[in-house]
Amino acid sequence: MQFPPMKKILVQLDTDPQPSVFDRIVAIDAGADDVFSYGNVDPENAVNLVHGAIFTRGPDDLKNTAIFVGGSNVEQGEAVCRKVTESFFGPMRVSVMMDSNGSNTTAAAAVLLASKHLDFSNCNVLVFGATGPVGQRVCQLLAPEGANVCVASRSKEKAQQLVEKLQNNFESSTFSVCEIGNETERKAMIQKSNAIISSGAAGIPMISKQELFSSKLLQLAIDLNAVPPSGLEGVDARDKAKDRNGVICYGALGVGGLKMKIQKRAIETLFSSSDLVFQTEELFRLATKLL
Amino acid sequence: MQFPPMKKILVQLDTDPQPSVFDRIVAIDAGADDVFSYGNVDPENAVNLVHGAIFTRGPDDLKNTAIFVGGSNVEQGEAVCRKVTESFFGPMRVSVMMDSNGSNTTAAAAVLLASKHLDFSNCNVLVFGATGPVGQRVCQLLAPEGANVCVASRSKEKAQQLVEKLQNNFESSTFSVCEIGNETERKAMIQKSNAIISSGAAGIPMISKQELFSSKLLQLAIDLNAVPPSGLEGVDARDKAKDRNGVICYGALGVGGLKMKIQKRAIETLFSSSDLVFQTEELFRLATKLL
Amino acid sequence: MQFPPMKKILVQLDTDPQPSVFDRIVAIDAGADDVFSYGNVDPENAVNLVHGAIFTRGPDDLKNTAIFVGGSNVEQGEAVCRKVTESFFGPMRVSVMMDSNGSNTTAAAAVLLASKHLDFSNCNVLVFGATGPVGQRVCQLLAPEGANVCVASRSKEKAQQLVEKLQNNFESSTFSVCEIGNETERKAMIQKSNAIISSGAAGIPMISKQELFSSKLLQLAIDLNAVPPSGLEGVDARDKAKDRNGVICYGALGVGGLKMKIQKRAIETLFSSSDLVFQTEELFRLATKLL
Repeated sequence: MQFPPMKKILVQLDTDPQPSVFDRIVAIDAGADDVFSYGNVDPENAVNLVHGAIFTRGPDDLKNTAIFVGGSNVEQGEAVCRKVTESFFGPMRVSVMMDSNGSNTTAAAAVLLASKHLDFSNCNVLVFGATGPVGQRVCQLLAPEGANVCVASRSKEKAQQLVEKLQNNFESSTFSVCEIGNETERKAMIQKSNAIISSGAAGIPMISKQELFSSKLLQLAIDLNAVPPSGLEGVDARDKAKDRNGVICYGALGVGGLKMKIQKRAIETLFSSSDLVFQTEELFRLATKLL
Repeated sequence: MQFPPMKKILVQLDTDPQPSVFDRIVAIDAGADDVFSYGNVDPENAVNLVHGAIFTRGPDDLKNTAIFVGGSNVEQGEAVCRKVTESFFGPMRVSVMMDSNGSNTTAAAAVLLASKHLDFSNCNVLVFGATGPVGQRVCQLLAPEGANVCVASRSKEKAQQLVEKLQNNFESSTFSVCEIGNETERKAMIQKSNAIISSGAAGIPMISKQELFSSKLLQLAIDLNAVPPSGLEGVDARDKAKDRNGVICYGALGVGGLKMKIQKRAIETLFSSSDLVFQTEELFRLATKLL
Repeated sequence: MQFPPMKKILVQLDTDPQPSVFDRIVAIDAGADDVFSYGNVDPENAVNLVHGAIFTRGPDDLKNTAIFVGGSNVEQGEAVCRKVTESFFGPMRVSVMMDSNGSNTTAAAAVLLASKHLDFSNCNVLVFGATGPVGQRVCQLLAPEGANVCVASRSKEKAQQLVEKLQNNFESSTFSVCEIGNETERKAMIQKSNAIISSGAAGIPMISKQELFSSKLLQLAIDLNAVPPSGLEGVDARDKAKDRNGVICYGALGVGGLKMKIQKRAIETLFSSSDLVFQTEELFRLATKLL
């Protein structure tokens, strides 16, 4: 019995009804021979799909099968990803990557681009929308870098909860809190920021052009919102290291190229082993080798 | 980072719950490397799928991605196709083809086959089921050909609406109306027809064998109904230029070979550029190069 | 018009909402170029999918398209498979395989492995869970072998119905009935068994270790339950011809290797012709060539 060489199969577990075309194309372009796309995946129905992935090929061949968890809802994706890894046992496991709504690859790309232009130690970084899925990950990636991170959110309570969590886990960076709706607090914080990263909800402007460029210390502004209007007024979605009033600016599409590279490299790397779990920090580490 | 050569991906947007196996196999046989099949597509959920298709690959590579809109309901397919093209902007676009229920490729094949046997100028062509999805397209394709087209429908009102629409857009052909249920009117019309094309609902007989072959002028009869009984009694689904009582006859399967060729060539051509929109007339133009 | 060489397409009709990843990977590894996976398939919506499979390629090319019926519910799979074969006509057909819940390949593997160690003629074979989907198939495959088969079930009525059906169709083997819940009957039957094959519901123990190894005549024990606890206590899921107290033991994973080989070979064989129907007996015949 002669079978063709083993194909690289990516099992796409998407929490949305229609599995993402974007993730599927990226997977194909990253070298997956086949993408098995599933929509409406939840922690319950994921178990059977994972069993199907780990019980077919022998342990030595399992590196040719991998799982990608995606969809627009990051919390649902996290729950599916947890269930996926819990369903493995012993050598019966495949590599898995979680990137719902592009949250992990986008945060990795933003922090990596910022690190090109800034030395984070003693740097004041203001993160807008910091308690959202991408913002949280940006803060998490900044935490070991020795920066002074200001967690800005519409909810002071959520911001404080995040800061406590980050401070318990990391000693390098220091954290403070800013309530976005409090104008005095916000303006004061902007004044002393060296970098601003905005990752608020799509289409919601965070601050005006005037406020953004009012800071004498500002060196870098990254807006991760791709849907107009901009989160940071004055930053265009296509900005890519664009100098605006002496500030290096990046928009969502400007960050998108690196985000895509990270996603492709990650998919490619999934097929090198059967025991990788790619979440926020692993994807960032992998990303640092790309620059 | 070395990636394999870019694969040709067709995104199949099907309005039915189970995306068509037929369209999927044709796409593979026409050279698509991958078909991403989506069911239950509507104008609302199509937008995200289109964004996924246009935001992954760079503008120069987008000709390797294309969209096929299908499903059994032609009106739903038209609505999805409109939404698809509205979701493009600037160079962020991919080629798209709409062929719900085979309506466009079938109409193109029928009119093209008729043109092999007839000179349309001053030719009387009677179209049964002319206000249905395929019939409308047959009339639309006959409109610039200088024929005398008789639009036959169960509803005189619908027939008149279609005639008005066609007369406003085309000057070459002339149009008249026939109410199928009106026996006198129908029989008179058959008597002076040089060609009859029947595209009524599946399994519904339009006229008897006797009526069909009663016309002394009749040279050609095409029945596009594949489900027995025939729309035109006396014409077999497998007829392919079959001479019956001096009339050249085609049945649905006899037209099917050319329909399939058109569909394959169209899919193949989609991948030559990123800005093609293949609907009724574009598919007919493409078909004329096949004969 | 030059098209690439014709691809081998397997249309996976799965009765579950999420089509089996397991069956899909096996199909790819068996040489299918593409697997078109459909979930929620029932006899009604299957017809269109079958028509799509048989009406695209020419009769000579239809051996490159095949249908696999699967899913966790064996009765639903049987209904879909019946509808599939009913939808063929004349040369418009493709090869089809039915293996819902692995029932056919598992039964074939179990009986084939048993035949390696036993001469079935005048052999007493006790089948636990004999009226379930896999058990029924085990009995069906034993029927022509000249064994004395004891049909053990929780329901004596169901067991008797099965025995009548089997006796009407086969003359080689003889059949008796055992009500599992009746301890005296069960223990007596175990005492005179040369082989025990257990195919009860997942995770439900049938008999204790003590009972199992109480039989002096017992040569072989096969437990097809993969989910702990074992159906036959004392047999490990990974046992593969393992000698335990002089009894050759197989567990579900120990049978799984051959089951998988049968499934792969069957998929591979589907693409050799357009008129194969692979169900219990055909898969067993195919399996006998593998040992």
